[in-house]
Amino acid sequence: SLNIRLAVIPGDGIGREVVAEGLKVLDAVGLKLETTTYDLGAARYHATGETLPDETLAELRGFDAILLGAVGDPSVPPGVLERELLLRLRFELDHYVNLRPVKLFPGVETPIAAARPEDIDMIVIREGTEGPYAGAGGIMRRGTAQEIATQESFNTAYGVERVVRYAFDKAVARPRKKLTLVHKTNVLTYAGDLWSRVFERVSAEYPEVTTDYCHMDAASMFFVTQPQRFDVVVTDNLFGDILTDLGAAVAGGIGLAASGNVNPSPKGSESWAPSMFEPVHGSAPDIAGQGKADPTATILSVAMLLDHLGLAEEAARVEQAVADDLIGRQTVWAQRSTREIGDDITARVTG
Amino acid sequence: SLNIRLAVIPGDGIGREVVAEGLKVLDAVGLKLETTTYDLGAARYHATGETLPDETLAELRGFDAILLGAVGDPSVPPGVLERELLLRLRFELDHYVNLRPVKLFPGVETPIAAARPEDIDMIVIREGTEGPYAGAGGIMRRGTAQEIATQESFNTAYGVERVVRYAFDKAVARPRKKLTLVHKTNVLTYAGDLWSRVFERVSAEYPEVTTDYCHMDAASMFFVTQPQRFDVVVTDNLFGDILTDLGAAVAGGIGLAASGNVNPSPKGSESWAPSMFEPVHGSAPDIAGQGKADPTATILSVAMLLDHLGLAEEAARVEQAVADDLIGRQTVWAQRSTREIGDDITARVTG
Ligand SMILES: CC(C)[C@H](C(=O)O)[C@@H](O)C(=O)O
Ligand SMILES: CC(C)[C@H](C(=O)O)[C@@H](O)C(=O)O
Repeated sequence: SLNIRLAVIPGDGIGREVVAEGLKVLDAVGLKLETTTYDLGAARYHATGETLPDETLAELRGFDAILLGAVGDPSVPPGVLERELLLRLRFELDHYVNLRPVKLFPGVETPIAAARPEDIDMIVIREGTEGPYAGAGGIMRRGTAQEIATQESFNTAYGVERVVRYAFDKAVARPRKKLTLVHKTNVLTYAGDLWSRVFERVSAEYPEVTTDYCHMDAASMFFVTQPQRFDVVVTDNLFGDILTDLGAAVAGGIGLAASGNVNPSPKGSESWAPSMFEPVHGSAPDIAGQGKADPTATILSVAMLLDHLGLAEEAARVEQAVADDLIGRQTVWAQRSTREIGDDITARVTG
Repeated sequence: SLNIRLAVIPGDGIGREVVAEGLKVLDAVGLKLETTTYDLGAARYHATGETLPDETLAELRGFDAILLGAVGDPSVPPGVLERELLLRLRFELDHYVNLRPVKLFPGVETPIAAARPEDIDMIVIREGTEGPYAGAGGIMRRGTAQEIATQESFNTAYGVERVVRYAFDKAVARPRKKLTLVHKTNVLTYAGDLWSRVFERVSAEYPEVTTDYCHMDAASMFFVTQPQRFDVVVTDNLFGDILTDLGAAVAGGIGLAASGNVNPSPKGSESWAPSMFEPVHGSAPDIAGQGKADPTATILSVAMLLDHLGLAEEAARVEQAVADDLIGRQTVWAQRSTREIGDDITARVTG
C-alpha cells in the first residue's frame, strides 16, 4: 500500500495535545506512514527568534501532506506567528483552497434551536492566498495624532478564478448542486466587481449548478436563521475566516470544525505542493496542557487529509468513527479527556 | 416644547412602508414636528440619474435629524445607491458613530436555544466613516486574465480615537461597564496595531471600565454561543456591519434591529451635522409593497432619534410601547400587516 510521508507541526497550546490524538487515529488506519515532527511555534520563536526558516520550508515541500495543530501564543506579539508561520505556509505552498465543511453531525447539540442535521450540511470554500490577508499596507506617523494605517486587499483574476472554478467542481458533484458567492459587492466595489464577474463567467460552464449571491452581512444572519439555504459557499479569505468560525458555532462548536489548506494541483506538476490540514480552532492557551481540548476537529482534519491523498475509504472510516463517537455522546454523558476521546475514536477505527 | 425639523428619506422597497409607520408613531408622541420628504433612491436615480445632488445634501444639513428607510434596488448596479447615497450621507455628515443596540426583548423568539433576554443586551458601536468603507481601491487590466482589484482600508488615529472614546463613555454609563474591542489584529496587522494602541491608550482614562479584546472570527462565534460575554462592543466599519446583522439574527431578527448614524458633536459647533436613524434591514425588494415588512426596527430607530435629540422621556415611551407590543406577540398570535403593527404601537404610545 501507499507510503505516506507526513510532516507534523503540533504548534502551540492545545495544538500538541490534539495532534497527538490525530496521529493515533491515523496510525490505526493501518497505512505505511512516516512522520517527521517540526517544533515550529512560540517556543522555537522564543528560543531562536525563528518562525519558519527557509530550509524548513524547503524540507516541508518534500512531504505528501502536513498536519498542523494550532499556532499562536499571548507571549508573542499578535500577528508574528500567524503571519510568519501559518499564513506564510498557506501562501508559499499555494493553498488557494481553504476547505471548511460546516456539518451538523447527528447527536451533536447546536445552539440553534430549530436546526436539524439535514439543515446544516455545507462546504465553505475560502480563498486562501490573497484578499485582505495579503499583508499589504502600512503605517505613517505612528503614535501621533496624525497617524494613518492602511490595510490593502489584493484580488487577482488568476486567484479568484481558480478558487471559484474549484467551488463549481465541488458543487456539481454534490446532490443539491448549489453554489453561493458571499461578498460585499455593494461596498467593496472593486474587489466585489472582480469576484462577481469571474463567478458569473465561470458559472456559464456549469449550467447544472444553481447559483446565488449573498452579501456577507446577510450571510452571517442566514448562517444562524436559515443554514439550509447553503450547500457550497465560495468567498474571500477574510469573509471565509469569519463565516467558518460562525459555521463552527452553528454546527456544534469549534471543537468539531475541520479544515484543509489545499493545493489542488496534480502531484508531479510544477505547481504542486503539500496540502496542510488543521482544526479551525486556535491554540486556546487558557486550557492548554489540561487535557480538556476536544481532538475531534483534528481527527476530522485527518479524515480530510486521507481523502485528499486519494484514500477515500480510509477517510470514510475515520469520519464514520467520529460520527459514531458523536452519537454516543448524546446517550452516555461522560466528561472525557483529550486522550480518552482520541482512544475511543481510535478503537472505533480499528474495531 | 421643542420644534423638531426632520428630513425623511423613505428610499427604496419596504423603506417607504416602514418609514410611514415610524412617522405615525413619532406624530403620536405629541411634539411640534415639521417633516420634509426627499425622494432619493432608485426611482429618482432612474428618472434623473441623480443619487444625492449637492444642493440636497446642503439642505439636509439644515435639519435636526434624518429618518431613513432603506436604500438599494436590483435595478441599480450594486454599490451605486449604497455608495453615492447612503454611505455618502454617513461620510459627509460625519456619522462616525454607528450605534446599534443588540437587545433581546422579552417575548421575542431568538434562534439561539439557550438565550434569555438578560443574556443579550449589548450596544455595538461601529465606526462609520472610514476603514474598508473608504471606497479606496481600483482595478487594473479589467476583464483580462491579468486583472487585479484592490480595496483599501483607511484608518486614522483621529477617526479611531473619537469612536473609541465614545464607546468608553457609553460603557462607563452602563451597569456592567465592560467594553470589548473586536478586530483581527493577528492578520490585519497595520490597522489592528492602530486600533489596539488607541484602545489601550484611551482605556487608561477609564479605570472603571473592564476591557477585553476579541478577534472578529471568535466574536462571531461568541455572538451565537455566549452573547452574555458582551456589553459594549467597539469595532471597525466592516466588522461592525457583519456583527450587527449577526446580532440582529440572534436578538430575534432583522425586523427588530434599529440603528443610529450619529454625529455626536454639540449642536452649534462647527463639526455638528444632523444624525440619521434607520433600521438595520435593507430594502427587501422581494416583499416590497405587500404590507409584510415589520416596521418595528424603524420605530425603535425613531426612539433612538428622540433620545439623540435629548427627548429621553419620549424615547422611553416609544421603546416601552414597542416592548409591550412584542410581549403581546407571544400570547396573541396574529399575522399583522406593516400598518397594523404601526397602528398598534401608535395606540400604545398615545394610550
Ligand atoms: C490564526 C489565524 C491567522 C487564522 C486565520 O485568520 O486564517 C485562523 O483564524 C483560521 O481561521 O485558520
Ligand atoms: C446597504 C449597506 C451599504 C449598509 C452597510 O454596509 O453599511 C447596510 O448593510 C448597513 O448595515 O447599514
